[in-house]
Amino acid sequence: MYFETIQQMKKMLGQLDKWLDAAAAFAQKKSFDPNVFVGLRLAPDQFPFARQVQSTCDTVKLAAARLAGKAPPAHPDTEQTLDELHARVRSVIAYLDGFTAKDFEGAATRVITQPRWEGKVMTGADYFMEHAVPNFFFHVTHAYAILRHNGVEVGKRDYLGALSLRAP
Amino acid sequence: MYFETIQQMKKMLGQLDKWLDAAAAFAQKKSFDPNVFVGLRLAPDQFPFARQVQSTCDTVKLAAARLAGKAPPAHPDTEQTLDELHARVRSVIAYLDGFTAKDFEGAATRVITQPRWEGKVMTGADYFMEHAVPNFFFHVTHAYAILRHNGVEVGKRDYLGALSLRAP
Repeated sequence: MYFETIQQMKKMLGQLDKWLDAAAAFAQKKSFDPNVFVGLRLAPDQFPFARQVQSTCDTVKLAAARLAGKAPPAHPDTEQTLDELHARVRSVIAYLDGFTAKDFEGAATRVITQPRWEGKVMTGADYFMEHAVPNFFFHVTHAYAILRHNGVEVGKRDYLGALSLRAP
Repeated sequence: MYFETIQQMKKMLGQLDKWLDAAAAFAQKKSFDPNVFVGLRLAPDQFPFARQVQSTCDTVKLAAARLAGKAPPAHPDTEQTLDELHARVRSVIAYLDGFTAKDFEGAATRVITQPRWEGKVMTGADYFMEHAVPNFFFHVTHAYAILRHNGVEVGKRDYLGALSLRAP
């Protein structure tokens, strides 16, 4: 399930990439600088759009790397334009393309930690379910909600993307 | 993984239940009717808070029922107060308490459909990963974001809840 869930997250990064296009199109239609979106936020003490995108990217990148026991690539969080956010999202999609189901064998029992946990650890299974999955969707949904709140024409289909519907 | 993920969703319903308390406390502090929250939304053509809570509840209720081949309990979406939303959330938590891992044996290959798909179907595996999981987090995060946007004092810890941190 780690691989399958990370594949789903990769799909959602692809959707996020399209929302960036929708934001740029909306800015062009309304004749304002599309990079205004980078600093928009839903509350003054909440992360702005760029940081929501960066956190979305980091959550899945770090989850894949940690659960597979690999060193993640560095991203210094310097993006200040929609084009730079496009590049960030696409670089993480490309990174995730390099994983296979086999990379996640033994992921459930790996010991995961991060500086914020002050020496405590989580199992890979707990970390993924309690931390990585809810955080990923928290940030990707906030990125969507910031755009939606500010008039960008995105809807639930743009959020979910194509579904594997088939004939009965 | 179906059972484990639905357990995580149940945990998040418990967090949502606490956000309702935080919303009521904020309304009391600011001396306004707490039920104002029920109709707030992030965009004029997006679901209001009550519908975000109802959709959160329905997404996990229907996922559990469909994947286990059970008939879900009906909820007529009549909630108009925070107290009624509390009751809705708690009734779904109680419903989910009745499931065990064994209920989800064979869930991956079940044939799932709903009226909106116009006769098409999805496998249980695809439905869960592509539809139920992203939709659940979409609506629960929007419920959070509407409160946060309107000043309610909730933060990331209130979103995630307690983590299974342990000594190394």
